[in-house]
Amino acid sequence: MNNFSFQNPTRLIFGDGMIASLSKEIPAGKKIMVTFGGGSVKKNGVYDQVIKALEGRIVTEFWGIEANPTIETLRKAIALGKEKQIDFLLAVGGGSVLDGTKLISSGLLYDGDAWDLVKKGYYPESVPMGTVLTLPATGSEMNSGAVISRIETHEKYPFYSNYPVFSILDPKVTFTLPDFQIACGIADTFVHVMEQYMTSPGQSRLMDRWAESILASLIEIAPKIKENKTNYDLMADFMLCATMALNGFISMGVNNDWATHMIGHELTALHGLTHGATLVIVLPGTLRVLATKKQDKLLQYGERIWGITSGTTEERVALAIKKTEDFFRSLGLHTRLSEENIGDATIDEITRRFTERNVAFGEDRDVTAQVAREILISCK
Amino acid sequence: MNNFSFQNPTRLIFGDGMIASLSKEIPAGKKIMVTFGGGSVKKNGVYDQVIKALEGRIVTEFWGIEANPTIETLRKAIALGKEKQIDFLLAVGGGSVLDGTKLISSGLLYDGDAWDLVKKGYYPESVPMGTVLTLPATGSEMNSGAVISRIETHEKYPFYSNYPVFSILDPKVTFTLPDFQIACGIADTFVHVMEQYMTSPGQSRLMDRWAESILASLIEIAPKIKENKTNYDLMADFMLCATMALNGFISMGVNNDWATHMIGHELTALHGLTHGATLVIVLPGTLRVLATKKQDKLLQYGERIWGITSGTTEERVALAIKKTEDFFRSLGLHTRLSEENIGDATIDEITRRFTERNVAFGEDRDVTAQVAREILISCK
Repeated sequence: MNNFSFQNPTRLIFGDGMIASLSKEIPAGKKIMVTFGGGSVKKNGVYDQVIKALEGRIVTEFWGIEANPTIETLRKAIALGKEKQIDFLLAVGGGSVLDGTKLISSGLLYDGDAWDLVKKGYYPESVPMGTVLTLPATGSEMNSGAVISRIETHEKYPFYSNYPVFSILDPKVTFTLPDFQIACGIADTFVHVMEQYMTSPGQSRLMDRWAESILASLIEIAPKIKENKTNYDLMADFMLCATMALNGFISMGVNNDWATHMIGHELTALHGLTHGATLVIVLPGTLRVLATKKQDKLLQYGERIWGITSGTTEERVALAIKKTEDFFRSLGLHTRLSEENIGDATIDEITRRFTERNVAFGEDRDVTAQVAREILISCK
Repeated sequence: MNNFSFQNPTRLIFGDGMIASLSKEIPAGKKIMVTFGGGSVKKNGVYDQVIKALEGRIVTEFWGIEANPTIETLRKAIALGKEKQIDFLLAVGGGSVLDGTKLISSGLLYDGDAWDLVKKGYYPESVPMGTVLTLPATGSEMNSGAVISRIETHEKYPFYSNYPVFSILDPKVTFTLPDFQIACGIADTFVHVMEQYMTSPGQSRLMDRWAESILASLIEIAPKIKENKTNYDLMADFMLCATMALNGFISMGVNNDWATHMIGHELTALHGLTHGATLVIVLPGTLRVLATKKQDKLLQYGERIWGITSGTTEERVALAIKKTEDFFRSLGLHTRLSEENIGDATIDEITRRFTERNVAFGEDRDVTAQVAREILISCK
């Protein structure tokens, strides 16, 4: 096991009706800015619950943080927040609203342009923030990370700041989510786990099993959720899986990979694809290209997750990868670039960008621009 | 899934050589009291590592926190700490030293006798404390609980205060532990999981699987550790399992039981038995007496942990319980009261105490004094 230091201070407040407890989580006297995406929270009742919980508090609303939040929008929120002397942020929405609000929380305490912070990748100062999550997927509610895009240059980079002080998760708010968003959320959660699990074997028995536990739970609930997305316990399981997949709990003392994510981000930056939708295309490609390197862990994964116990090593590895792609397809998602009308021009452009940035992704920093190209070609 | 609120702020610092990082975790200028048990930390080099890391700091040492820490000893530490105006505590030892130091940390900020705090069961004020753990077992390094004994009355009660600010876990410090302590630590960890898992089924797929992950890991490593207790990765797995078994990570949104612990505490209070050694006696009895009530979860446990897939329901349940007791015996531990020369007089006395306290333990508060008596009789 690798040496590690772990701390996750976020208070997770989980369950039916918990949004009502919001006000007591925010210290008295705070000037609160509540951040939102589009209008879905007005349709599903979350907006009303939040406003009711904040009755009597000093509240500014900021609307319009888009999917794959952009610096262009966030600059406006930061300007408004500075003007109103905001000292507490409450993000109400999915991962994009939460991610965007993390940059706002740092931007409020930074004098220059917030894009500087994104380029730095990390900024330790931030106004405290809480969240009310409406879409289980990114894990942003219980980690310190965000991913921020820039429209004018089609760039998209990770940014790290502080953890939310609290996050409120009420599974009932997911009942009205569109099927596609649920599918992408399940896919995103699955791939988050794979990024922390599909590395060298034998690093930690417990971390392996905890990762496999999330994968097995997702595979079990996905078809049931397709049948009934208003089953409280199913959506509670999904919501808890999504948070636990990216809060550090399955990552103690083990290598991380993240090559699939870094390649997927480029597909979003260039084509506006939903994050989860990019991951289900790229991950099978990553596994196919790195099948030999990751063979031992793929065998373990195949056996424990898919029950694959017979065949040659190559057959078992290939079947484990196929089962993974099949699972993504069973969610109703595309798993090939051609299905998104993405062709060689995009592969060339991503190769060019990665070459220019001299990237080296993956657990052993050996996924170079050329390896990423092979992965993308394998996803055609 | 039940509604829940979860937060665990402890920083976990894990790995070979990490004790050296101690000093930078304690704010400058603090008047530190370091608490110890007996002299084993002088033999295994931990004391030297700690003192070296604290070079140049203001340090008071307090020695002699015993297994099952007593209020009688802790009062002396509190008096010394008040005299020296201690404002940071560092517990170096196993769960008993950590538990005792939690009471000291609250006692330093309380004017009366610290036994008042134990009787209250909770006190929110405390001097900040860190820990260097030497024995994986109790999970005290990453939770807010402690168990404190009183010699003069043979009493033993749980007490809750604050989480350690940080805990340093170096698996190498476990290499010199006596076999019996390792066995009790594995047993304690196993039973901690069972207290949070062996309840109504179907509450959370993920929490069930995370609990089963710890059980499966313990069953896998226990015989290997018996062969070689200086294998770093094995002891790292064990240490991580012990911490994760009682830090709230497997307890989100699910019922807890703890009847076995409450009965076990009485055996320690009356006979001085090591905590883990009491649990392996009581747990099989609890399961035997509550086999019908806990039948569905016992079937799941039997299948997933012990591979029991055939036989009648009664046979499968009985076999799952037998496998559990066999596992404890494979650790070299006694699983029957008679093996500890404990007879009817003790069962009568515990029944008397529980009747007087009008106890109602277990997930549904239906383990009364009479049910506890049945459990103890089943453990003869």
